[in-house]
Amino acid sequence: MNDFHDWLFQKQAFVEFVLEKNLPKASDETHLNEAIKYSVLNGGKRMRSLLVLAVAEIVEAPPIAIENIICAVEFIHAYSLVHDDMPCMDNDDLRRGKLSCHKKFSESTALLVGDSLQSIAFSLLSSPSLQINPKNQLQIIHILANAIGIEGMAKGQALDIENTNKKISLDKLMVMHRFKTGALINSACLMAVLASNNYDKKTLDIIDTYSKSIGLMFQIKDDILDKEASQEVLGKTPGKDEKYNKATFLSLLGITKSKELAAKYYEEALTVIKPFGDKAYYLASMAELIMTRSH
Amino acid sequence: MNDFHDWLFQKQAFVEFVLEKNLPKASDETHLNEAIKYSVLNGGKRMRSLLVLAVAEIVEAPPIAIENIICAVEFIHAYSLVHDDMPCMDNDDLRRGKLSCHKKFSESTALLVGDSLQSIAFSLLSSPSLQINPKNQLQIIHILANAIGIEGMAKGQALDIENTNKKISLDKLMVMHRFKTGALINSACLMAVLASNNYDKKTLDIIDTYSKSIGLMFQIKDDILDKEASQEVLGKTPGKDEKYNKATFLSLLGITKSKELAAKYYEEALTVIKPFGDKAYYLASMAELIMTRSH
Repeated sequence: MNDFHDWLFQKQAFVEFVLEKNLPKASDETHLNEAIKYSVLNGGKRMRSLLVLAVAEIVEAPPIAIENIICAVEFIHAYSLVHDDMPCMDNDDLRRGKLSCHKKFSESTALLVGDSLQSIAFSLLSSPSLQINPKNQLQIIHILANAIGIEGMAKGQALDIENTNKKISLDKLMVMHRFKTGALINSACLMAVLASNNYDKKTLDIIDTYSKSIGLMFQIKDDILDKEASQEVLGKTPGKDEKYNKATFLSLLGITKSKELAAKYYEEALTVIKPFGDKAYYLASMAELIMTRSH
Repeated sequence: MNDFHDWLFQKQAFVEFVLEKNLPKASDETHLNEAIKYSVLNGGKRMRSLLVLAVAEIVEAPPIAIENIICAVEFIHAYSLVHDDMPCMDNDDLRRGKLSCHKKFSESTALLVGDSLQSIAFSLLSSPSLQINPKNQLQIIHILANAIGIEGMAKGQALDIENTNKKISLDKLMVMHRFKTGALINSACLMAVLASNNYDKKTLDIIDTYSKSIGLMFQIKDDILDKEASQEVLGKTPGKDEKYNKATFLSLLGITKSKELAAKYYEEALTVIKPFGDKAYYLASMAELIMTRSH
């Protein structure tokens, strides 16, 4: 595990460096660029980027393509958090231990920060300098666009609002999370495969299954942490789900069965990547990290 | 002009047909798809689409590419209106004579409608079926992404907020409008050229200048109409700029000089397209339509 911790340390620093490099320069005319920077560089765990980099250990992809995919994914994730924190959505004043964007700046700025981050993501992915086959590049854009829209993240958000204060089934909860958080995690991993100019279909299928399992495991773990962790460790307001009367894996299954379900997806993720042999080391370690995380 | 009116009538119907075809099917789980449909199919003038179609009369582009560009541009335009009408922005209850999205549905739905429309636009432009050179297709996506972000529409919105209740110069007003409305109009026209697999650089340059002139002319005309037209004709709350103490061409230049400036950009647009000869007919007619519109 020591080797993985070195890798993690290096890659986390690399992600911050790449994000900062691709952020807009601060502008003195409006607070928009400053607010964008604030919302992206706020100490996130960069779990999606680390998954992209773990996939990049399996396939051979141009570093510049991986860099832009990392930025696109983190920018989209940051946009979703900024909009999700707004008063008309989850109305959360804290994000990763700091004021959320609309509290630090204003609601109108938060709205524009999210809107801008989405378009910057697509600008980065359509850059002429990615060194990948243009057809693959178009497929990467198509996958991300679909993962965050009405058959992806936005639908998940809409279902989340729809489900608040309602008794829903486990199936419906799973569907909601597959859209809300799963689709972006899934697309992040698939984009990393597609960035390789000689990927094979089997690799794409394995990564597809792996990332779907990881997405659900991540969400179940999130629900458990929301209940068990303190605000200090979590960096955001805990117990939010209960307060808003939202169905969670915990409220539907209880703590023991939730942990069992997380373990089931963890095993699934580990099993499917076995054909990669030793190369699967970082993917397996990422799965373990997500499974055992305390915040 | 009769010929142009026939063209206009046909093309407007065509745009509505194409938009409806590419809208998501109504879903019974959430109001998201319904709200998206409501916000796009609300009787807009489709000025941007008509400009795309007028450019398509000059170049030879695959119809499917033009269709998707039209949808992408109208979806982005609709997203900007939905977010712009929200309480934290312009707080407008009316849009084209109907309740704005957040009044008809909810603020959270309006937020997600805008977010979704942006991603649907990029999904359409990255579709594998556009029948254009993948490199051109990537360039189309890149142009749109840049036109609506922090060096485009979103920056224009941020400047608009920043400029409210301030005395600003004509130069600053022009810069704001170039970003806020000009960039999308410009990119719409450029995308139509790039959809042609054998366009020449000179055509791209001419359309670039034409569309920039049209954009400014459109905005000056908008300011004049905001002052002169009634709510019934305009379909939205008139006198809004005055109410919010926003600088306009009228407040800075007065009515006569504003009309002269609009006429100047009209002439510029007509002059630059002369090399197209008879083919420029629809572009010239579109310029005239925008110049003489009463709403």
